[in-house]
Amino acid sequence: MPQQHSIYEQGLERQAANFAPLSPLNFLRRSAFVHPERTAVVHGQARYSYAEFYARVRRLASALAKRGIGRGKTVAVMAPNVPALLEAHYGVPLAGGILNAINTRLDPASIAFILNHGQADILIADKELSPAVKPALAQLGRAITVIDIDDPLAEAGALLGEKDYEALLEEGDPAFEAAEPGNEWQSICLLYTSGTTGNPKGVLYSHRGAALNAMGNCMTFGLTGASRYLWTLPMFHCSGWTFTWAVTSAAATHVCLRKVEAGPIFRLLEEERVTHLCGAPIVINMLATADDSIKRPLAGPVRVMTGGAAPPSAIIKAMEEQGFSVLHAYGLTEVYGPATACDRQEAWDDYDLPRRAAMMARQGVRYTTLDGATVKDAGTMAETPWDGETIGEIMLRGNTVMKGYLKNPQATEEAFAGGWFHTGDLAVRHPDGYIEVKDRSKDIIVSGGENISSLEVEEALYRHPGVLEAAVVARPDERWGETPCAFVTLRPGAEVGAAEIIDHCRGTIARYKVPKTVVFGALPKTSTGKIQKFALRQQAKDL
Amino acid sequence: MPQQHSIYEQGLERQAANFAPLSPLNFLRRSAFVHPERTAVVHGQARYSYAEFYARVRRLASALAKRGIGRGKTVAVMAPNVPALLEAHYGVPLAGGILNAINTRLDPASIAFILNHGQADILIADKELSPAVKPALAQLGRAITVIDIDDPLAEAGALLGEKDYEALLEEGDPAFEAAEPGNEWQSICLLYTSGTTGNPKGVLYSHRGAALNAMGNCMTFGLTGASRYLWTLPMFHCSGWTFTWAVTSAAATHVCLRKVEAGPIFRLLEEERVTHLCGAPIVINMLATADDSIKRPLAGPVRVMTGGAAPPSAIIKAMEEQGFSVLHAYGLTEVYGPATACDRQEAWDDYDLPRRAAMMARQGVRYTTLDGATVKDAGTMAETPWDGETIGEIMLRGNTVMKGYLKNPQATEEAFAGGWFHTGDLAVRHPDGYIEVKDRSKDIIVSGGENISSLEVEEALYRHPGVLEAAVVARPDERWGETPCAFVTLRPGAEVGAAEIIDHCRGTIARYKVPKTVVFGALPKTSTGKIQKFALRQQAKDL
Repeated sequence: MPQQHSIYEQGLERQAANFAPLSPLNFLRRSAFVHPERTAVVHGQARYSYAEFYARVRRLASALAKRGIGRGKTVAVMAPNVPALLEAHYGVPLAGGILNAINTRLDPASIAFILNHGQADILIADKELSPAVKPALAQLGRAITVIDIDDPLAEAGALLGEKDYEALLEEGDPAFEAAEPGNEWQSICLLYTSGTTGNPKGVLYSHRGAALNAMGNCMTFGLTGASRYLWTLPMFHCSGWTFTWAVTSAAATHVCLRKVEAGPIFRLLEEERVTHLCGAPIVINMLATADDSIKRPLAGPVRVMTGGAAPPSAIIKAMEEQGFSVLHAYGLTEVYGPATACDRQEAWDDYDLPRRAAMMARQGVRYTTLDGATVKDAGTMAETPWDGETIGEIMLRGNTVMKGYLKNPQATEEAFAGGWFHTGDLAVRHPDGYIEVKDRSKDIIVSGGENISSLEVEEALYRHPGVLEAAVVARPDERWGETPCAFVTLRPGAEVGAAEIIDHCRGTIARYKVPKTVVFGALPKTSTGKIQKFALRQQAKDL
Repeated sequence: MPQQHSIYEQGLERQAANFAPLSPLNFLRRSAFVHPERTAVVHGQARYSYAEFYARVRRLASALAKRGIGRGKTVAVMAPNVPALLEAHYGVPLAGGILNAINTRLDPASIAFILNHGQADILIADKELSPAVKPALAQLGRAITVIDIDDPLAEAGALLGEKDYEALLEEGDPAFEAAEPGNEWQSICLLYTSGTTGNPKGVLYSHRGAALNAMGNCMTFGLTGASRYLWTLPMFHCSGWTFTWAVTSAAATHVCLRKVEAGPIFRLLEEERVTHLCGAPIVINMLATADDSIKRPLAGPVRVMTGGAAPPSAIIKAMEEQGFSVLHAYGLTEVYGPATACDRQEAWDDYDLPRRAAMMARQGVRYTTLDGATVKDAGTMAETPWDGETIGEIMLRGNTVMKGYLKNPQATEEAFAGGWFHTGDLAVRHPDGYIEVKDRSKDIIVSGGENISSLEVEEALYRHPGVLEAAVVARPDERWGETPCAFVTLRPGAEVGAAEIIDHCRGTIARYKVPKTVVFGALPKTSTGKIQKFALRQQAKDL
């Protein structure tokens, strides 16, 4: 009916006055203007106000632009959570380029692969990472510009590049202006997934998605101008779950952190009056189980967002008793980090801790800024029933889903088949609509025709007071097909045998889910701290 | 350089999985899903959960769709802040239509003009407004469908329509689904400005702008799922400053209110544990100066957003002493209500009250969701210096600026000249970048070649303990050109003469700014509660 609604379209087009591309660059521009004197960034004894932060960002953008960085050009950064990496989240896109933050734990071959696949023209690298960066550069097969981050807080490392990051900033103009992004669909970041097999895939974020997920973080995690955010989560991980931009949008304070160790974290929590932090379960675990000699009283309540695996109820309890409130979120690199969170219901306040922890440990419901989060049968694309039992695949859609994989249209098409992003994570839908991950597809153990969730068995193991870390995989079995095999790291000083562990599990989960085998020792991990289940599966097979 | 950045665009287009039109409809869909049992709407003794609220909205959309409402069709609603009007903010656009909420204080001729100009097919009207609606319908010159809101809390009025709103809902399907909006630039609301001269202009909002301003409200005003928002601000006013959608996006509770009277407001503040409200200065004034017999203790801290005129320091003081914290915002119908707010700076906490109030009374800085707010010389479009003295025009740009005026491309073009929305408000820029309105252009008094801000004189008058309300306009003067003429309403019981008022002003403002004339009595107001300065100017001229 074009004639009928034409009055609502005539002379009402988008124009300069009423349309601007959504972009996180707008957040820094505003915060630097409104709160120029507020502390934007803390790093050791260094303090940058918002005015200084913005000036450094503009210098960086200007210096990069002079070196040819603009639309379609990549700048790679490899660094722990230092100001330079945070600044790159603004400076590179302000020049029009794409930031490729690289996982600092990668081996030289992987680094070289990423630098070549992402076609980086410049690499900015922290000197402490030189042992991996140097051989990576040698494997590149081409020359690129290397800039060193010569952080006074770095403990070791060699300078490899043509100049230091601070000297690069000197090249730039602190009043640099650029009309970026040209449109909100323009790419802002390139992040490589840590695939356990094959080459990593390059995930592209848009300015629009980055701005919206950052605003979603503010709404979900309650960031305000008074917030002080501790960088326990790597910024190379989904752009720091987009908190690199969210914290700035609230004109809050970034507290940098080079290394995730309990001592420095507790010190910063107190001295910098930290209010918010994010972290993988291993970080939460470290805080919850730290020795009393290391713990310090919190300056006030601290909100903690965690994801990657459900926090066991014992950890939630320990954290709450210390003054942390834990929010469980779920996401992947492909969805800008957190895409769902376990929004608290009023009714849960009346539950006892185990029941409440069970509710809180679920992956929950979509962010306000996401359009849809559901569980589907990947074959039929039908929604699974909300029965808490039927397993399907988590699928997500909306503005905070990646643009796609770089130079890999086939993988993009597969990931987006049927109009939803296929996460590869298997989950159930509870009667209240909340999603709970049961496993990565290959982590399901099939024993005697029954599906066993390795997460459920791990949750049982974590409830044992002597268990520090646990992972469960399938072990091939002639009679049952597979049986659960547990790999367990004990707490220092704990003396527990396999029989006791098995007995403990019998008391909490169904008989067929109880591990038939228990192996003690350290667990192999990926560069992002994920337990390498494929390695454990191989070990279990060889037992 | 298309070749160089092509790798960032190939196979990376927008598609169903990674793009969804921004829309406030998404907020209700999510809140109804995540918090179905939470109270969404309170109206007298009635309570609607989010599940019920959404079901009513879907019924409304379905019933409207059955009656032919879809893309490009207008539904007008004329009602106080009752659930039906809130539901229309979702139900009408869910059907694809455009909501035209009409100012309830308008005269029949204006109502008829709006219904015809906006081409409304259906009018939903509260029965208490029948004395104005009935003659308006008679003047229309065409038949339209009329639906009555037969609110049990209405005190009078006649039923005019073919059926009652609740019966209309019965026609609809509570499981109605629609793929709206088709795109985020689609119109969602039509709102007429209350021009003091000429015909009102129809301002169009987009789904994109509505969603973003609502999110901006959440970030600026700190709404969370625990918030309880009292509807002291009319929903017909800029879609309730987009709080119709913001409150829902936070899954907070809407507390409806038919009439703005101090007694019921204080009762609801206590009984409904209200945490947030908005209102014109007259509402704030009413709360601050209410008789002690009416006041009740607040259930907790209450945040108040006000705009339209700066709150005088005496009012800020009175409000703070009662437990309200006042945030001064600024906006117009053309910018979805609030576009700037007076973000608090840490340094102000150390100021004494008059100085702090002076800082807080400014219009402030742009919302995070707006792209730009500045003061320009309307002739040259150059930014005025940040000297706190040079007067220019406030100009705004970004996603939360209207699409334009309905069927009035010329007015749209003029309003957007030079790529900025021209507000018509005159202001200065302070050295900290904060904007302060000095006057509507026609409210400036030019006396002896000096510009006098009528607002500044009014602020001085308000500081007198006997003054309840004050307005200052230019009075023609042979010698000076113009002199300030004050119209003052005294507090009940106050006995103050003109000489005392003039003496008081001499103590606080420059001599040439002191009113030469003081007139006591009630002030004439527009239907939105704005003081009718044009009427006072006429009165001053005739003195």
